[in-house]
Amino acid sequence: MIYLDNAATSHPKPEAVYRRVDDVLRHASANPGRAGHQMAVEADRAIFEARESVARLFNIKHPDRIIFTPNATAALNLAIKGLLKPGEHCVTTAMEHNSVTRPLKFLAQLGAEVDKVQPSPKGVTDPFSIKAAIKTNTTLVAVTHASNVIGTITPIGEIIEAAHARNVPVLLDAAQTAGSVNIDVEGLGLDLLACPGHKCLYGPQGTGFLYIAPSVRLKPILYGGTGSRSDMDTMPDFLPDRYEAGTLNTPGIAGLGAGCEFIVSEGIARIRSHEVALCKRLMEGLAGVPGMKLYGVDDPWARASVVSFNIIGNVEGMDPASVGDRLDSEFGIAVRVGIHCAPDAHKTMGSYPTGAVRMSPGYFNTAEDIDKAVEAVAEIARGAR
Amino acid sequence: MIYLDNAATSHPKPEAVYRRVDDVLRHASANPGRAGHQMAVEADRAIFEARESVARLFNIKHPDRIIFTPNATAALNLAIKGLLKPGEHCVTTAMEHNSVTRPLKFLAQLGAEVDKVQPSPKGVTDPFSIKAAIKTNTTLVAVTHASNVIGTITPIGEIIEAAHARNVPVLLDAAQTAGSVNIDVEGLGLDLLACPGHKCLYGPQGTGFLYIAPSVRLKPILYGGTGSRSDMDTMPDFLPDRYEAGTLNTPGIAGLGAGCEFIVSEGIARIRSHEVALCKRLMEGLAGVPGMKLYGVDDPWARASVVSFNIIGNVEGMDPASVGDRLDSEFGIAVRVGIHCAPDAHKTMGSYPTGAVRMSPGYFNTAEDIDKAVEAVAEIARGAR
Repeated sequence: MIYLDNAATSHPKPEAVYRRVDDVLRHASANPGRAGHQMAVEADRAIFEARESVARLFNIKHPDRIIFTPNATAALNLAIKGLLKPGEHCVTTAMEHNSVTRPLKFLAQLGAEVDKVQPSPKGVTDPFSIKAAIKTNTTLVAVTHASNVIGTITPIGEIIEAAHARNVPVLLDAAQTAGSVNIDVEGLGLDLLACPGHKCLYGPQGTGFLYIAPSVRLKPILYGGTGSRSDMDTMPDFLPDRYEAGTLNTPGIAGLGAGCEFIVSEGIARIRSHEVALCKRLMEGLAGVPGMKLYGVDDPWARASVVSFNIIGNVEGMDPASVGDRLDSEFGIAVRVGIHCAPDAHKTMGSYPTGAVRMSPGYFNTAEDIDKAVEAVAEIARGAR
Repeated sequence: MIYLDNAATSHPKPEAVYRRVDDVLRHASANPGRAGHQMAVEADRAIFEARESVARLFNIKHPDRIIFTPNATAALNLAIKGLLKPGEHCVTTAMEHNSVTRPLKFLAQLGAEVDKVQPSPKGVTDPFSIKAAIKTNTTLVAVTHASNVIGTITPIGEIIEAAHARNVPVLLDAAQTAGSVNIDVEGLGLDLLACPGHKCLYGPQGTGFLYIAPSVRLKPILYGGTGSRSDMDTMPDFLPDRYEAGTLNTPGIAGLGAGCEFIVSEGIARIRSHEVALCKRLMEGLAGVPGMKLYGVDDPWARASVVSFNIIGNVEGMDPASVGDRLDSEFGIAVRVGIHCAPDAHKTMGSYPTGAVRMSPGYFNTAEDIDKAVEAVAEIARGAR
């Protein structure tokens, strides 16, 4: 199988991730922060080290402000529902995943205001349009770092600058970039960073985190045992406990830590260069296939490792679902088709409601994988009318 | 090490659990329900089979009404916050864990009413007291199946009968019983069942579930991508998708499934008998130690596999934390001390705020483990004044 669905879940993981998960599950899966015995202390250490590893990769000064969550969706919900109140205003874009759009819609039903800034059809968000949308009651700017459909990277530095000039915190959804595109939290002055563990960070599914800057205070989503201030019937006031109710996914989080350590050890620049090279090869290869419609910007450095396309042919083209099916069944190539939980992005690209075929190369893909994928698409496209 | 902290997290797990987690993480961790390629289909199957395994163990007719969560806390929050509205009334007990108490306190601050029924000092809840507490605006009865501190099992059948007579749904927190004490969901007519995966179900940490009966409709806590009805900016109306936003913990859930299969294959009655025998041996052994205060009911069949005690000595006794430390450092015995995230339970038992020492034998403990634990406690107690 040639796996080109890394934007959904990276595969394979570094061997060290598999081993760490198994090792912690077998030997250190007592309750972190709940008991004093030796195995609980080892579980504590596993969590502590993972928090340090995440902090190192993202240049986060306060590791205790990294809240482990089961995925990016939970991190985004904590940020959005924890911050935005009825009567308050949020600026977002028409490139967001449903993990941003759906919680915002829920809050809009409760009386919050949401404005979606419209990026260009290639997915480029103008920072000025974000700035222009900020109002006196704006309390949150929520943007994706890179669209999961079209890959275009958001100019986050300029957006943060524009938002901070109006004292508005910025939430970055780094689902498609964290671990592959460098994110310097302290350098950017980022307020909220939501990341999945199972994509470019090479952790297992069931992991993710939200970083919360010291200036930001959120309402918790989950209330429950923390192993701290257990005499109180409210959540403790300090982090990470305030937002980490219930037993954590110790083996998964340890695996996420191992993934971050792998990235630091390889060098994120090297990972990025390899993925950019693969995307460039893929885009160039696909561009040479007759009847091909490629979405997004041309410069592979301006996008995350995501290439979406449709075979439009000369007359009516091909349904992306059929293309995906044939890639899987005839060529053993795993891609993702449809609208990728991001209807607004497809509306922006002009591919709604049919969607597109998405190929997302990862660090473990090779140039040969890409060439085979291009050949397979060319072969399928020959059948298009 | 002799591990007697199974009420926090069971250890070890059946070998099949370790293997299933590793196998799924290595070979089937694509995104369930998100793509059509072979590995995504395998991830789908892993989740589907785990849902079926949970359904089989708990006699649940509709597996699609089992919502996978990262732990029991998230399941309880979904049930409580999803159901109880301001102005509505909840009946609960003074034996609950903070995973019930804290979300209820949060809702009370928003205008819900909460009444805590007082069990006896041995932790016995009178079903009549629950019945008597139900008012015209009661919309939820939330009770633990067995206290995590004192172990006393709640007469859930009678409580359900009393609540249903007033058309009030019942939420059962089965954190200390699921997998060890039989729970027949359809037989009981249970409305909401919250379970952790990492305790008696032998799954890894990071897993749990909420079962929601067809008669119950909850507001979601998390909003986000489901891979279904992706064109909508609201959550889909059908289960499990409505409550399962974001990528699931596929390897963890598969491990939870393997844990449930292990229980079905061993026979829950056999597991229960073994744990009851260990508890009986432990209680009898500890009762023979001079200066010992044992909490809870005498009949080991009337409690989950949890034995809490304090060395009260003749004069001032010993701090439970010191007892735990010595058990760990001198005898290699892992227990949990303190108030176990359940201050109300300790108030009921009369052990607040110091707490107690808790030993929780699991299916993989032996009579020899118990004898060594009793000897160690006896040795430590000899130093008590």
